[in-house]
Amino acid sequence: MLKKGLLLLPVLAFICVLKLTGQAHKTSFNVVPLGVKGGLDESNLSAYLIAPEGSSNYICFDAGTLHYGIKKAVENKVFNTSAEQVLKKYVKGYLISHAHLDHVAGLIINSPEDSTKNIYGLPKVLNVLRDKYFTWDSWANFANEGEKPALKKYIYTYLEENKEVSLSGTEMTVRAFTLSHSNPYQSTAFLVKSNDSYALYLGDTGEDDIENSDKLQVLCQQVAPLIKEHRLKAIFLEVSFPNKQPDNLLFGHLTPALFMKELFKLSQLTGKSTLRDVSFIVTHIKPSGNNEQKIRVELERENTLHLKLIYPQQGKLLKF
Amino acid sequence: MLKKGLLLLPVLAFICVLKLTGQAHKTSFNVVPLGVKGGLDESNLSAYLIAPEGSSNYICFDAGTLHYGIKKAVENKVFNTSAEQVLKKYVKGYLISHAHLDHVAGLIINSPEDSTKNIYGLPKVLNVLRDKYFTWDSWANFANEGEKPALKKYIYTYLEENKEVSLSGTEMTVRAFTLSHSNPYQSTAFLVKSNDSYALYLGDTGEDDIENSDKLQVLCQQVAPLIKEHRLKAIFLEVSFPNKQPDNLLFGHLTPALFMKELFKLSQLTGKSTLRDVSFIVTHIKPSGNNEQKIRVELERENTLHLKLIYPQQGKLLKF
Repeated sequence: MLKKGLLLLPVLAFICVLKLTGQAHKTSFNVVPLGVKGGLDESNLSAYLIAPEGSSNYICFDAGTLHYGIKKAVENKVFNTSAEQVLKKYVKGYLISHAHLDHVAGLIINSPEDSTKNIYGLPKVLNVLRDKYFTWDSWANFANEGEKPALKKYIYTYLEENKEVSLSGTEMTVRAFTLSHSNPYQSTAFLVKSNDSYALYLGDTGEDDIENSDKLQVLCQQVAPLIKEHRLKAIFLEVSFPNKQPDNLLFGHLTPALFMKELFKLSQLTGKSTLRDVSFIVTHIKPSGNNEQKIRVELERENTLHLKLIYPQQGKLLKF
Repeated sequence: MLKKGLLLLPVLAFICVLKLTGQAHKTSFNVVPLGVKGGLDESNLSAYLIAPEGSSNYICFDAGTLHYGIKKAVENKVFNTSAEQVLKKYVKGYLISHAHLDHVAGLIINSPEDSTKNIYGLPKVLNVLRDKYFTWDSWANFANEGEKPALKKYIYTYLEENKEVSLSGTEMTVRAFTLSHSNPYQSTAFLVKSNDSYALYLGDTGEDDIENSDKLQVLCQQVAPLIKEHRLKAIFLEVSFPNKQPDNLLFGHLTPALFMKELFKLSQLTGKSTLRDVSFIVTHIKPSGNNEQKIRVELERENTLHLKLIYPQQGKLLKF
């Protein structure tokens, strides 16, 4: 009897650890950051794989860096296969927030080795891919529209504002919301759903007052009910510059102060304690000088809401 | 007397080593590869800094990867300053062979942190930068022509075929020659001169027979006299695919067999032994599967001319 009890001890301890860390039945999404920085470093630009827990069917939020990030993830044993196979088999499609090169360079560069899949985006975004990048002057037309011959590896899949669409080859759906990124230039937020859980990815965005826009306010109103129901697990939000960056040189980006200003407004819709259940993944820090360190210090100092801030690392698995 | 002789020994040995390695008075150019691969790996795409020996005034042949390559070079102590300063102060301009993204991504991505300088190229190449990349849909217009507002950090400097032009801020001049890269698409070879020495960089190129072109033949005729006079120190030439790649899937690139075929033709103009004085820097290997190893084996096996083949490494200084 004693012997049997002793044998069960490790199992019980394991269950306790799972309960304490909240990982036992709460994980909804696996996220693999392939690139986390907001510029300069070609080896590490915005791209985040996301799949429901237990699934290998990933969608990629933006695609600034693919190959180098996948290679890092494979080295970290996040995937148990080659980088080539991860790209071809596990990445089922791309959700492109906007067509600035630091968000699409990896997609273009890797297209010769990629498999057939969808590229999802608002029409304005996909039109830039069609007219500027997947052209025979810039590269080759690997997509299904635009300059002839169209190689038809990628299928442009147009999203409409706030209309739910299935993400082909995955167990997820998506809704898109327009963001203002140096008005009138637009970027996109993607609300991804798996079962009853959600994750929200925001591409580059400025703050409403500075942008003379209401896009973040509209988005907050949309997602506040999901936060109150504890169904929105993670929000990816950008902080590009430290606080000292003047408003007229923000180019449609956020600072730590503006990041917290927006989340304070969100907390007024959801309640502060509820917002603490959400994981905030800090994206798109521009790595000039010692900005990375500076932004982190400023965010921690101004985190009077006590939000869960996550600093993603390239190729390191995150669970939400 | 004996003592004095002993003291001189290390000095004499040093001079002997220099003579044997040919480095004493022969080095004309320093080359710092910032990216060496022909695709996929966003951290390591075609870009090569070149400056006359003893000068810090570099020109960059293509600009697929800048930041990550400069970072590597700084780590290797090739430069004694920060990556930011190398980009701003030492890189005096860019020679762009063609506008495929794997040759210009680093330039676009790093433009916000760069200093004012010239981008040199044939008109067709610069027009793609102007119309596709440095536009307000794809990025921002950091150049001096194209969509308004033009931020005028970069000055498009149009080259004419075979016309010598000074490279501003450096001690070098350049002449451009058209290459065929999947006919009718064109790429460029740059013949750079410093004092009486030359280096020749070829962007992506197909082989004349396959391309139905005479561009490589014309170029060989141009540079053969310089080789015979021992003034052409280095030739950068691409090998993208292993020999098994079928001709109809070369997309304007070379295999080891085609690389050697072209250099055999060149040796007929220069004499075989003279060609052995030139360093051949093998560029643009596409890193899919085990192609890198395969191409190296095939090149060594087919090197019946006994040419000096150099496999450049990112961030490692080369001297010619």
